[in-house]
Amino acid sequence: MYLTEEQVFGLLKTYGSPLYVYDKSTIVERCQQLSIFAKRLSDAVDRAVHMHYSTKANSNVEILRLIKSNGIWADCMSPKELKLDLKAGFSPKELLYVCNNIREEEMDLVKSKDVLICLDSVSQVETWAHKSHGTKIMVRINPGTVGVGHSHKVITSGPDTKFGISEANLPQLLQLADLYSLEIVGAHQHLGSLFLNDKIDHYVAGVSAFLDIIKRNFKNLSIVDLGGGFGVPYAPEEEPLNFDILYRKLVPVLKNFVEEYPSVKEFKFEPGRFIPCEAGLLLGTVTSIKEEFDTRWIGTDIGMGTLVRPSMYGSYHKIEVIERDPSGIMVQANICGNVCESGDILGKRRIVDCPTVNDAVVVHNAGAYGYSMSSNYTGRPRPAEVMMTEKDCCRLIRPAQSLDDF
Amino acid sequence: MYLTEEQVFGLLKTYGSPLYVYDKSTIVERCQQLSIFAKRLSDAVDRAVHMHYSTKANSNVEILRLIKSNGIWADCMSPKELKLDLKAGFSPKELLYVCNNIREEEMDLVKSKDVLICLDSVSQVETWAHKSHGTKIMVRINPGTVGVGHSHKVITSGPDTKFGISEANLPQLLQLADLYSLEIVGAHQHLGSLFLNDKIDHYVAGVSAFLDIIKRNFKNLSIVDLGGGFGVPYAPEEEPLNFDILYRKLVPVLKNFVEEYPSVKEFKFEPGRFIPCEAGLLLGTVTSIKEEFDTRWIGTDIGMGTLVRPSMYGSYHKIEVIERDPSGIMVQANICGNVCESGDILGKRRIVDCPTVNDAVVVHNAGAYGYSMSSNYTGRPRPAEVMMTEKDCCRLIRPAQSLDDF
Repeated sequence: MYLTEEQVFGLLKTYGSPLYVYDKSTIVERCQQLSIFAKRLSDAVDRAVHMHYSTKANSNVEILRLIKSNGIWADCMSPKELKLDLKAGFSPKELLYVCNNIREEEMDLVKSKDVLICLDSVSQVETWAHKSHGTKIMVRINPGTVGVGHSHKVITSGPDTKFGISEANLPQLLQLADLYSLEIVGAHQHLGSLFLNDKIDHYVAGVSAFLDIIKRNFKNLSIVDLGGGFGVPYAPEEEPLNFDILYRKLVPVLKNFVEEYPSVKEFKFEPGRFIPCEAGLLLGTVTSIKEEFDTRWIGTDIGMGTLVRPSMYGSYHKIEVIERDPSGIMVQANICGNVCESGDILGKRRIVDCPTVNDAVVVHNAGAYGYSMSSNYTGRPRPAEVMMTEKDCCRLIRPAQSLDDF
Repeated sequence: MYLTEEQVFGLLKTYGSPLYVYDKSTIVERCQQLSIFAKRLSDAVDRAVHMHYSTKANSNVEILRLIKSNGIWADCMSPKELKLDLKAGFSPKELLYVCNNIREEEMDLVKSKDVLICLDSVSQVETWAHKSHGTKIMVRINPGTVGVGHSHKVITSGPDTKFGISEANLPQLLQLADLYSLEIVGAHQHLGSLFLNDKIDHYVAGVSAFLDIIKRNFKNLSIVDLGGGFGVPYAPEEEPLNFDILYRKLVPVLKNFVEEYPSVKEFKFEPGRFIPCEAGLLLGTVTSIKEEFDTRWIGTDIGMGTLVRPSMYGSYHKIEVIERDPSGIMVQANICGNVCESGDILGKRRIVDCPTVNDAVVVHNAGAYGYSMSSNYTGRPRPAEVMMTEKDCCRLIRPAQSLDDF
């Protein structure tokens, strides 16, 4: 999405600063890319292929509606996410509850909504089984191979992660399923978050290892869920994920599997970030500029409560300064927020236009894990969210919190 | 605070899980410790000494009221925190607005409430001056020496941090103050968060360097604010901060300063964590137990949205398992939450009682930067907060969010 200077300042004036802005057409485009990829895979392996959007990336109900209307299904992991997905129009069969360490009451809720659940441990299956003889479930497998991800905090498979059931514990799982007449209809794995082209081989090898585990341990699964992880470029040197390459490398593996394991009827994927990430910009206001100890600092009203990824993961987000009166001067600066913590930094050593106070900043790739991870830390309200639609129309899709809202 | 098994399970049943529980008597005790320290210092140096509780550590208004009623003043850094402090009964003169990169409208609000502001950069002073000729302000100094803290993310002074004005820029500040007839009444520094006995010398050296900067650059300050940072023990090997040692090492430095710089009328400190941290427990429920790849995992309903410090800073919190039926068996386990992120881990390799599902966990030192940093990530409601008062009475001081509340 490209916003003119006039648009940036106009949006900030109308909806307040900071502000999350999403571009409808980018979201639609990403859904279409995924749908095409799913269709090609489906044709190649002669099985259904469904994309389930991972609600946690961005759970604004208008965004969920847009994703739903573009043929993507969803996965959720809490009662609130389930509620939002249903509100957005997803039918129970289009949903998957992919959860981790949940309580029995929550399982009861999922069952009452007739949504397929994917359970993460033998212990959780036991809790489920207790009240749910004869039901269908999916299970999450941890293949033991180290996953992929942009930070060790988001690599979600491998012996050091908390997720899934290892092959060694599958006999125990099957025995339990037998005891309670549970039908294990599918197996899930998720290797991690944010893989790009250089990790496609690693990803496909992970899929292959997972399929081998299925073949060795399960007789008649109908669903194989390969999880999410489709990355988007954040840093300038990164290239978008090439779905042609992914397709070419994945198809032979899936084709082989289908031949050897004909009961499988459906493959699922769980892209999250991929859909809304690049559609989102976070706008803010420059509040202070200073040079101290040979470092230039640009202070803004975008604190770590508004966008936590840089503080939490050290994540890179492209940042632009938008000047009211362009000076033509570029500077190197650290860009930070308004929270009294040293970790409250959006980006270090960035080359940007040299701002004055009340100029704007634009943080890119803020559409995923931006608003959804935001908090009220230091008493800051969560900002508004707006959607840019056709012909540069703009629609408020969530108002900013007032001081009485939290 | 010690809670019996019966109390833990009773509280979880009454108020839901997870749950923040605070102990009134610990908060009162910490306020008294600080008041005694302030009184001794005041007597020794013949100047007023005020403790300003840093609201961001825990801004529950009942906790603020309790702190206020125990003779502690407060500092705040956002309109919401200011509002809460005023609601809790602090008078404007008992408050200090210690802010970072705020907007002009926010400065207007602070001025309208007649609260003294501490500004963080020459740029912010310029914004303030524009509408506030002839007013009193404080300024934050960065002495350039590296601060103290439990993580590089919370060391708040030194050349690599975003805070304060360096000595090199003080001539510019003074010129600006002169131009706008601003009266700089005080100077502030904050070395970082969580220093304990092994860092007292480092802290006192930092104070000394700061006082030297004041002497070299300011003529008639009346307030010297030494910031916060008083630590509490988190890990088992850590000892409580010894205020006697701190007193003995600090007094000569302050006495010398007062002799050489008689205009100073008041010293301020800004303890945050020290007051509520140890008073807070976070209770939760065991939802899953598993052993995978030779690691035991205890899953709970305390996700990173509820307590983010372990995920964000790698912080250590003591964790206990409370069994309904004590087994006498101890195990080593990783304890994790209910969020689908690998970083969602409360503690690794902990020796705890061997739980079964629906047993409880108690996370210690959760009274500071617990609730205040919590979020709704993955659609989880923020939990309730209760206060244990005299005779084990219990009072709800904030209800849990419902799914419609966010």
